[in-house]
Amino acid sequence: MRETIKPVDLARATRLLNHGPVTLVTSAHEGRRNVMAAAWAMPLDFSPPKVVVVIDSRTLTRRLIEGSGVFGLQVPSVGFARETLAVGSNPGDSLDKFAAFGLETFPAQRIDVPLLAGCLAWMECKVIPDAAQRHDLFLAEVVAAWADSRVYADNRWHFGDDPDLRTCHYVAGGSFFKTGEAFEVEPAALVAGAHDAGEQQPPDA
Amino acid sequence: MRETIKPVDLARATRLLNHGPVTLVTSAHEGRRNVMAAAWAMPLDFSPPKVVVVIDSRTLTRRLIEGSGVFGLQVPSVGFARETLAVGSNPGDSLDKFAAFGLETFPAQRIDVPLLAGCLAWMECKVIPDAAQRHDLFLAEVVAAWADSRVYADNRWHFGDDPDLRTCHYVAGGSFFKTGEAFEVEPAALVAGAHDAGEQQPPDA
Repeated sequence: MRETIKPVDLARATRLLNHGPVTLVTSAHEGRRNVMAAAWAMPLDFSPPKVVVVIDSRTLTRRLIEGSGVFGLQVPSVGFARETLAVGSNPGDSLDKFAAFGLETFPAQRIDVPLLAGCLAWMECKVIPDAAQRHDLFLAEVVAAWADSRVYADNRWHFGDDPDLRTCHYVAGGSFFKTGEAFEVEPAALVAGAHDAGEQQPPDA
Repeated sequence: MRETIKPVDLARATRLLNHGPVTLVTSAHEGRRNVMAAAWAMPLDFSPPKVVVVIDSRTLTRRLIEGSGVFGLQVPSVGFARETLAVGSNPGDSLDKFAAFGLETFPAQRIDVPLLAGCLAWMECKVIPDAAQRHDLFLAEVVAAWADSRVYADNRWHFGDDPDLRTCHYVAGGSFFKTGEAFEVEPAALVAGAHDAGEQQPPDA
């Protein structure tokens, strides 16, 4: 594992995904392995951290995850967008995409699935069995999480000047947005006096 | 409804949400109405378009949606971030947040829920009953969709120079990212020749 990859506090691990970046899902079972892209992935709960990912029932990824009960969920960098598009555009049934695209991997710590270099954050996920899978939704608990300390530290993203070391958001057909400028706001004033801002997901109401 | 708000082709409506922006959920039932912020919302299917949103069981929004079976899902602009944080940080039980924060609304077309000015896209959603609601997941079909033609046309976002007329991504505690620079890539080359890029969600594998 490269030296800039550091463990992430599980109680804050949803922050890796909270801003809606595109993700890559790695899977392995009985000697087969695969990687797909998933724009449709998001946090589901804070502690223990959970995520939900849409995984089409026709995919090799789905069969491998159903077999193993685990997957890797990683956040690619802008510099990895070509690879992200390529693994999202080619079926895994007939191709070892890791070999075909020359993708470098490293082992996960808690699950038996390869993780991808070229990403900025990694979550090791265990599937939570749920009837919702009939909608192609996979729920999972994050059992370990990692991030590249060049852009994530103290439980937050802090992108710098390197345009490739930044997360990205998928649109369609090869189009992405870079994660843009960070900004902070105070909540709009409430007539009767505003409360403090919530810590994580705008906690509602 | 302001004149720049145009209908969106339902077959492409997931593109409003594909890049993972923060959203606002509006709801109404039996004379009560509410609005909450939700960073945890994403597409679920293309046609008919479906979405999935995490809505905490303790919220007024949850009770209103369970009562009415419908909700509005809208994408706020950077210029609306203070209001987004405010409605995400104050409970609806004791407060009409529309009045408290001076939020302008307009009627939806297919559902009886107010939609919010200050946003850039709007989806009118009907809940799909599902056992997954035990995980606070609400699945819904998008039955009508709208976008501000100043930044969305021909089924794509095209943000311009106005820094406020841009979608944003929620991090935590008043911190957001602006949706950044758009970029396009060709898929990484495959040894045996790469396929064309998929059209929407990186379609897998």
